[in-house]
Amino acid sequence: MAEAEAGALLIIGGAEDKQGECAILREFVALAGGARARVVVIAVASEQQTNLSNVYLDVFRRLGVEDARTLGVAHRERANAPSAVESIERATGVFFTGGSQLRITRLLGGTLLDRVLHRRHDAGLVLAGTSAGAAMMPGVMIAGGVEPVTSLRAGAVELAPGMEFASGVIIDQHFEERGRLRRLLAAVAQHPRDLGVGIDEDTAVVVRGGKFRVIGAGAATVVDASEMTHTNLASVERNALLAVSGVRIHVLPAGYGFDLHDRAVVLPPEERLAAEARS
Amino acid sequence: MAEAEAGALLIIGGAEDKQGECAILREFVALAGGARARVVVIAVASEQQTNLSNVYLDVFRRLGVEDARTLGVAHRERANAPSAVESIERATGVFFTGGSQLRITRLLGGTLLDRVLHRRHDAGLVLAGTSAGAAMMPGVMIAGGVEPVTSLRAGAVELAPGMEFASGVIIDQHFEERGRLRRLLAAVAQHPRDLGVGIDEDTAVVVRGGKFRVIGAGAATVVDASEMTHTNLASVERNALLAVSGVRIHVLPAGYGFDLHDRAVVLPPEERLAAEARS
Repeated sequence: MAEAEAGALLIIGGAEDKQGECAILREFVALAGGARARVVVIAVASEQQTNLSNVYLDVFRRLGVEDARTLGVAHRERANAPSAVESIERATGVFFTGGSQLRITRLLGGTLLDRVLHRRHDAGLVLAGTSAGAAMMPGVMIAGGVEPVTSLRAGAVELAPGMEFASGVIIDQHFEERGRLRRLLAAVAQHPRDLGVGIDEDTAVVVRGGKFRVIGAGAATVVDASEMTHTNLASVERNALLAVSGVRIHVLPAGYGFDLHDRAVVLPPEERLAAEARS
Repeated sequence: MAEAEAGALLIIGGAEDKQGECAILREFVALAGGARARVVVIAVASEQQTNLSNVYLDVFRRLGVEDARTLGVAHRERANAPSAVESIERATGVFFTGGSQLRITRLLGGTLLDRVLHRRHDAGLVLAGTSAGAAMMPGVMIAGGVEPVTSLRAGAVELAPGMEFASGVIIDQHFEERGRLRRLLAAVAQHPRDLGVGIDEDTAVVVRGGKFRVIGAGAATVVDASEMTHTNLASVERNALLAVSGVRIHVLPAGYGFDLHDRAVVLPPEERLAAEARS
């Protein structure tokens, strides 16, 4: 028997279209099995779990999913309940809404629900998250920071442990809309081993097999500090302005991909052909 | 006799402090000769030349300059008048206000005033410009672009010939405040020979001898596309999203410098000492 492949991760920069074409939510449904998908919505990031869950249940049903449910988690006991585990055991796709990423890690971290999500994801379960649900995906998560980040102070970004579904990346969301480049720079300057991935609103990256591709209306900005030549992060006061030097960036709209292992852009087919024609 | 050295250029990202410490305008006065400076304010970029000029005259007088004047240029004939040339001949510092950079190039470009500004600058005259007065400094100038630049289309930045006081750079101003990274990326992707320099508000770069140093409250962001590996700029429709890959960036707050020839950061003295102590 072939070894099971991990499911896709769909990491969304927030504010994805829920009225029109719903390109991103449609992609989630397709990845999770289309009309036969069994979808669970987890709105634990939000204080209004029921209302927010219902918004997504409506969309998923409109997109043809018959089996879409919500899993409310008001406290950690709920995340350790057998019924919560059972709902994930039978799901093909789990969708995390926005809210506060710290609520997700605080209520789910280390619970049975956390464990079943990882085990099932490793065996093929598709996981999606938007906004806070995107931020929590990696092992190192941006927990918050001063906004607006016009004059980013070195201490203005707070890193915290995430849910560890995505490895080797730090995610920032609402990226261009909230002008978060410097916040993400501060994060990768602290932790240059990971790639920063800033995702615009109504935009997502689909991660699978160590690569991602971009879908949606905006772009993903990859911030690669592996060749950073200088940062004043270690030496400055928390209220001094951050300096970073020698960080590579890539701005990638829909169709582009990125190889997380090689840290290299994967061109869309038409651009690949054009590049070959030129060489 | 030693060859004359070109004067400093003070390129300001707009909205510099005019009420408090006035660090940047104070620097201009110091570069131009302090109390003995002979300052000329040119507000040709603005439709309200007189009002805007008076704001700066007041500040410069408050900072101790006795000889501060304004040079109004309502049409090109004025920029070819002997009296306009004469006022620059005797100046030690010329300050360009904000407004529209295209007004500056349209009214001054190729006039006698343009020529005397270059000749005197090459011999030591200090030139300063803020906002539009900063944008016009290089040979290639960002003339405008769609704002907000949330989803930058490839054709959304308009380049035009500038006044050519600064070489090898493309300037963008109000940089972090208006979220202009992608606009500057689009500019350098079109013209990767030049370095992009995005300057925050109340922040300036002082260019002299092929280097600049940063002063003020924010940062200068250097965007270096010399090793850019890909852009879709040539192949996309004007309304497609821009893609760029492999662009190096440096975010430099006050105290940091940059060598425009070597394209390398110059650390502040205390960071240089810290780096030496570590090695």
